[in-house]
Amino acid sequence: MTALLPEGYHDRLPPYADAAASVEARVLEAARLHGYERADPPSIEFAEALGSRLKAGGLHDAVRFVDPVSQRTLAIRPDLTAQVARIAATRMGHHPRPVRLSYAGTVVRLRGSELAPAREWRQIGAELIGLDSTAAATEVVRVAVEALVAAGTTGISIDFTLPDLVDLLAAGPLPVAGGQVAALRDRLDAKDAGGVAAIAPEYLPLVEAAGPFATAMERLRAFDTQGVLTSRLDALDAIAAALGEGVAMTLDPTERHGFEFQSWLGFSLFVAGPPREVGRGGTYTIFHEDGAEEKATGFSLYADAIVATAPPTERRRLFLPFGTEPAAGASLRAQGWVTVQALEEGDTPEAQLCTHILTNGQPQAIAG
Amino acid sequence: MTALLPEGYHDRLPPYADAAASVEARVLEAARLHGYERADPPSIEFAEALGSRLKAGGLHDAVRFVDPVSQRTLAIRPDLTAQVARIAATRMGHHPRPVRLSYAGTVVRLRGSELAPAREWRQIGAELIGLDSTAAATEVVRVAVEALVAAGTTGISIDFTLPDLVDLLAAGPLPVAGGQVAALRDRLDAKDAGGVAAIAPEYLPLVEAAGPFATAMERLRAFDTQGVLTSRLDALDAIAAALGEGVAMTLDPTERHGFEFQSWLGFSLFVAGPPREVGRGGTYTIFHEDGAEEKATGFSLYADAIVATAPPTERRRLFLPFGTEPAAGASLRAQGWVTVQALEEGDTPEAQLCTHILTNGQPQAIAG
Repeated sequence: MTALLPEGYHDRLPPYADAAASVEARVLEAARLHGYERADPPSIEFAEALGSRLKAGGLHDAVRFVDPVSQRTLAIRPDLTAQVARIAATRMGHHPRPVRLSYAGTVVRLRGSELAPAREWRQIGAELIGLDSTAAATEVVRVAVEALVAAGTTGISIDFTLPDLVDLLAAGPLPVAGGQVAALRDRLDAKDAGGVAAIAPEYLPLVEAAGPFATAMERLRAFDTQGVLTSRLDALDAIAAALGEGVAMTLDPTERHGFEFQSWLGFSLFVAGPPREVGRGGTYTIFHEDGAEEKATGFSLYADAIVATAPPTERRRLFLPFGTEPAAGASLRAQGWVTVQALEEGDTPEAQLCTHILTNGQPQAIAG
Repeated sequence: MTALLPEGYHDRLPPYADAAASVEARVLEAARLHGYERADPPSIEFAEALGSRLKAGGLHDAVRFVDPVSQRTLAIRPDLTAQVARIAATRMGHHPRPVRLSYAGTVVRLRGSELAPAREWRQIGAELIGLDSTAAATEVVRVAVEALVAAGTTGISIDFTLPDLVDLLAAGPLPVAGGQVAALRDRLDAKDAGGVAAIAPEYLPLVEAAGPFATAMERLRAFDTQGVLTSRLDALDAIAAALGEGVAMTLDPTERHGFEFQSWLGFSLFVAGPPREVGRGGTYTIFHEDGAEEKATGFSLYADAIVATAPPTERRRLFLPFGTEPAAGASLRAQGWVTVQALEEGDTPEAQLCTHILTNGQPQAIAG
């Protein structure tokens, strides 16, 4: 019984744990080269504080417990973005903007869902705090793509969305009858033409305006007769132009699921392999202590999802027979070899999953 | 109020978070070169399972909560060694021995102490499972030292101890009057000569047998007239010989604090800087499902303690003025530069903590 783990919690074993760590290091290095520096908040905070930084910060799903020291409720973070926002707003509040921060950490939620049963995973990301402009979004999307390339993925594609689209239209040229905006967003998210028609038929063209980037943009521009969306669509065009040919792009302007706290831009990242999202990002608003709001743009990637698309390659390990001089091993490691020293006479290269064996001072490949 | 963190929890900010991540990566790389592969257990397990793998596994100090899914008590790990032991004993139970595993993760405890107020920290380490021989201990100590060197520390010193020394003597040549063994261990740990004399005066020489390695070894050999300790002392001599001149060594044979689950060998690691332990290790026993016991040897290092001894060096960042061509930035990053692209006209190298600015296509150092 003690060998089992709770539902939704998993061991990462060799060689997958090494592969996940390598993905993480490469993603963070890609961000570092663009000036993003690590922030590493604790995995536990006051529950109240964790939920107050972002719009709709999903703290409903956090593990909580009462702290015997403070007698207050603490929560294990279900997301790192809100913590990085807190750091930027408080301890780094005096830094000139924009502030570029990266992070990697474990996040936990109380319950899994049928489609996503994991209750713990690694979140890696970068946040550009102080800006949500076209230039900011272009940089963030570019860093996300470079991070995925650095992590060894291929076939990168981005699905863009405009999270506040309906709010924007409803507040302007296309008012929605009292209290129906949330229902309309929901029906559009579900691509339910009948449901949309029943609430606000003038929104129906949006159901069709999802798909390959160029086509969807054309339909959106045709739909937007009053130019309410022009700045957003121009921004999307600029981001797309910056990404160039190598990245496949789609646009699903009314997709809302998972973009509860994003503002004008959201995006999901996919790569060749299982059709599973490997990351997401967008623009959002940070709330400061004094009630001030600050714009920000960022992305998060999920190491396990990335590793699942590119299983680790074969090990390369050099067996050092029992009695090998320590200096010989040191010299081989300095050349880049992973050495496995036999500590008993009976140990074998096969037992140690070695691909090579030191023979007469030279590494020799083991047939097999 | 929401800007505060609970007592004992801390943010790591730039450049310390980067420095800690770099220490962690270097330590794991040193272990990887010796054939240690990553294992990454979840941060949460069934409380019952976490406490059952090692002797005196300190689960009294873990954060616990009731899992709404299983209705059982879960605990956040206060230590990673017991989890790696579980993996080795169960999911990797079929692997030939020894199994070499490394790990890095966050550990949490319910309460801090006056001397060690932190309630969350990073534990990095390596475990050699299946052996606790002299050869095994030599390898583990060597990897720990190489890891500290790789992490950039200097002035490495090791304080060895013999955790089961009193048990061994009491069961053999120096019996201790009924029920007094624990009290004797405690008084020896405290170097309380009067207390030791009151319980078992024949143990008094052990109080003096602590200090520089050679002297302490000499005293222990003189004390051990019946040769009960010979194999342990020979092993210590072999480990010391393998380490060579570069590492300062001490021996405190009755030190027990923090070595509750270790068997014949324990060691603490120190480096130049604040006199704070940066790691520890030793030999121990793993309990399998079927009651079988298995020997193991390992070490853990603490990234924050290591970073505290060698504060991060200066940043080197290249400011790319507003409007710099993306291709120019890409080319400079490929040369190893960290670039910070101005995304607005008003941004400055000073605001972005840059040491260099791109001028006429060339990085130029900024005076100051």
